[in-house]
Amino acid sequence: MCELLGMSANTATDICFSFTELVSRGGGSGPHSDGWGISFYEGKAFREFKDTAASVNSEIAKFVANYPIKSHIVISHIRQANSGRVCLENTHPFSRELWGRSWVFAHNGQLKGIKKKALRYYRPIGSTDSEHAFCWMLDQIRIKYASLPPTDFQLSKFIAGLSAEIAPHGVFNFLLSDAKSLYIHCSTKLCWITRQAPFGKARLADAEVEIDFSQHTTLNDIVTVIATTPLTEDESWTSMLPGDFTVFQGGQRTYSSTSPA
Amino acid sequence: MCELLGMSANTATDICFSFTELVSRGGGSGPHSDGWGISFYEGKAFREFKDTAASVNSEIAKFVANYPIKSHIVISHIRQANSGRVCLENTHPFSRELWGRSWVFAHNGQLKGIKKKALRYYRPIGSTDSEHAFCWMLDQIRIKYASLPPTDFQLSKFIAGLSAEIAPHGVFNFLLSDAKSLYIHCSTKLCWITRQAPFGKARLADAEVEIDFSQHTTLNDIVTVIATTPLTEDESWTSMLPGDFTVFQGGQRTYSSTSPA
Repeated sequence: MCELLGMSANTATDICFSFTELVSRGGGSGPHSDGWGISFYEGKAFREFKDTAASVNSEIAKFVANYPIKSHIVISHIRQANSGRVCLENTHPFSRELWGRSWVFAHNGQLKGIKKKALRYYRPIGSTDSEHAFCWMLDQIRIKYASLPPTDFQLSKFIAGLSAEIAPHGVFNFLLSDAKSLYIHCSTKLCWITRQAPFGKARLADAEVEIDFSQHTTLNDIVTVIATTPLTEDESWTSMLPGDFTVFQGGQRTYSSTSPA
Repeated sequence: MCELLGMSANTATDICFSFTELVSRGGGSGPHSDGWGISFYEGKAFREFKDTAASVNSEIAKFVANYPIKSHIVISHIRQANSGRVCLENTHPFSRELWGRSWVFAHNGQLKGIKKKALRYYRPIGSTDSEHAFCWMLDQIRIKYASLPPTDFQLSKFIAGLSAEIAPHGVFNFLLSDAKSLYIHCSTKLCWITRQAPFGKARLADAEVEIDFSQHTTLNDIVTVIATTPLTEDESWTSMLPGDFTVFQGGQRTYSSTSPA
């Protein structure tokens, strides 16, 4: 199983603390040694780092864990390959452009028979079931909305519907963003925490690192972190349930729905 | 004016030596201080590093210059902004997917009136004339060929024609790749050198670095480097002429044509 990490914040925030925990699980405290990737949005574009090496052994991961890149939306993934060989083109997150926006997607799980779903505009570059599912979702969004829908609510609701349509194919925990919202679907395991004033301290679960958020934030900051399992051991994370679909904008929940798992 | 750097090789080769020279020009020995980017292909996917900081001051550029990422095709760009503000979404290279391949594009020059050309499938994420030209070219390729054309020659010829159609809009020096070929159009200034056995030594023009290629290569290696101006001072670079369009695959020229400049 792979691990996911996401962030949605109302102010550009670095994710070094959480990423340090994820990296330690990538072939260190966890079995996910088949590559990793992270995408940091800046405006409508994003900055991406990927490697096919286990994140604990990756020079690029060490650089990213120590170099504070500030972003409003982050999507990261460490991989334990189950569909598609270990190579860069099979390494999450995947990305495509729609309506002049960058869409980024990372997935944990396996989807049986997903490749039977026909594609129109977007084609996978690699051979994973994940990228096929992403291309199919973007296809459907593009077919439904030739340009940006009038409200974010409509778009969230439509993506919730697509998620529910794919979910029966297997395990479909994903993070998706269009540079504005962070869309999250839970099929088996995902949790989140929203940090805001008054900020406290937290200690990573697997890496021996502690942080005092009050030293790194202002009173107005709202930062939500999403992960496969809680990254810290002394905070209260909200577990998502199978079938839960949630959307965050600027660290705050803007949409939530549940479909039968 | 921006500077371009490209590489096409028949074996995965690192570009640290040439990139060191490019970085030194990015706000150091040159005026190109409005960001930089580099894309390294691995199979059909690519790895990308970008920054809006001047490359001489960029921690990411320092990392890339010292970390040998091996690739068959590399496209890099350092920017002196003339169209579009300095931000990540306006930072070259730009990329899109077509036929399940990653296409990457970097441009040096200005193109007047290019935004009047209507777009169908691909939309710019940023506001540069360069990205608009890239989207238009991909649109035309997609309209002409719904799937991969039968021969590389046909595709090269078609892209040569598109280049000649855009060239009258201004200055159109570009590097473009579809993960297999490196397409190059010269409007004012570009040159290239092919290095193969017997390999010799070379010294960078602006940075005090010398390399003995014979220490880093095998007898069968063929590596072509393309740059705005020669990067080394003791090798013989081939200057391209205005209107020249050239394609490299695995370090070797596979197509060449000239249109009236």
